[in-house]
Amino acid sequence: MEFSSKLLENAVSEMSQLPGIGKRTALRLVLHMLRQPKEQTNTLSQALVQMRTNIKFCKSCNNISDVDICEICANPNRDKSIICVVEDVRDVMAIENTSFFKGHYHVLGGKISPIDGIGPHDLNINSLVEKVKSGDVSEIIFALSSTMEGDTTNFYIFKQIQDYNITTSTIARGISIGDELEYTDEVTLGRSIVNRVPFESSLKL
Amino acid sequence: MEFSSKLLENAVSEMSQLPGIGKRTALRLVLHMLRQPKEQTNTLSQALVQMRTNIKFCKSCNNISDVDICEICANPNRDKSIICVVEDVRDVMAIENTSFFKGHYHVLGGKISPIDGIGPHDLNINSLVEKVKSGDVSEIIFALSSTMEGDTTNFYIFKQIQDYNITTSTIARGISIGDELEYTDEVTLGRSIVNRVPFESSLKL
Ligand SMILES: [Zn+2]
Ligand SMILES: [Zn+2]
Repeated sequence: MEFSSKLLENAVSEMSQLPGIGKRTALRLVLHMLRQPKEQTNTLSQALVQMRTNIKFCKSCNNISDVDICEICANPNRDKSIICVVEDVRDVMAIENTSFFKGHYHVLGGKISPIDGIGPHDLNINSLVEKVKSGDVSEIIFALSSTMEGDTTNFYIFKQIQDYNITTSTIARGISIGDELEYTDEVTLGRSIVNRVPFESSLKL
Repeated sequence: MEFSSKLLENAVSEMSQLPGIGKRTALRLVLHMLRQPKEQTNTLSQALVQMRTNIKFCKSCNNISDVDICEICANPNRDKSIICVVEDVRDVMAIENTSFFKGHYHVLGGKISPIDGIGPHDLNINSLVEKVKSGDVSEIIFALSSTMEGDTTNFYIFKQIQDYNITTSTIARGISIGDELEYTDEVTLGRSIVNRVPFESSLKL
């Protein structure tokens, strides 16, 4: 693409760094901004910078939060002995939306994926194992998406905690294999938590 | 969607103001930014604000430019007596990419579209008519997309300039009716300029 303006080219080039946004889409978005008042672009930019600069992760569960301990972890009515292990904040939002779960979460920040160079030490796994060791946990629910990476991650964590006297379960596989949690309807997702099965029985032995 | 952070919610809400970006996509993009270094979000935001604040439109053709008179208009080797009328900068880029056209452009900034509340006075039509009146123009090539709005706009301009002694043409309809210029392959687009037809013969009389 041959641009008539460096400012335009630069904006398009930065926008197209985002995943799933090609040069054409970036150009379309940027031209839209040019047709809107300047303030709109300023507001967008400020929102992004402020989020990126000031966002916090809950010191207990690693979920995105504006405070040190997130609302869920800080809620005394929730059962901190049951921990639901998820990949990212979208899964927390999806499960919270069902109102079926009243325990705590642990946000891993991804799945083990050698192909993407993501190993166990890139994820928030140690802090989960420490929680289990502390003796306050009675059950771990694995709620990663049922992909190869999700299964690998579940199994890696399971090996670290299997010697402690806790229940491990996975959400019921009412969710189709390969589907992402965040695209699952509330009822299916809610049921899959209620009908969770012991982790051992989910292993294809 | 129930967000665990106002900063996150705000960023997602601003991103989803962009056309074609829903809340889910916005959340995916914003979470990606959180996994990248802070500098990347700062650079993106700066690029957008700088573009929106400092971008100029060529005083002659209205194309996006970093200077008062764009490179095309300022190029003495280009024929300013032939003016190709286009909707926006994407069309200029698409036609320039064919290297078939060595005249000037006139960027309207849209098409007449009553349904979207866009009338002739919202577009850069007067300055085009003034150019024709000045007597320096020998030919006007209409290169709007061949939609109802494009045809309406062509015809509106044609009526304003038909009494002046100039040739009017439209790019050859090798481009399928309803297709956007920017998605047309170079060869088809290049040929459609070479094989342009007199505007009157393109009217369904
Ligand atoms: Zn928390
Ligand atoms: Zn120009």
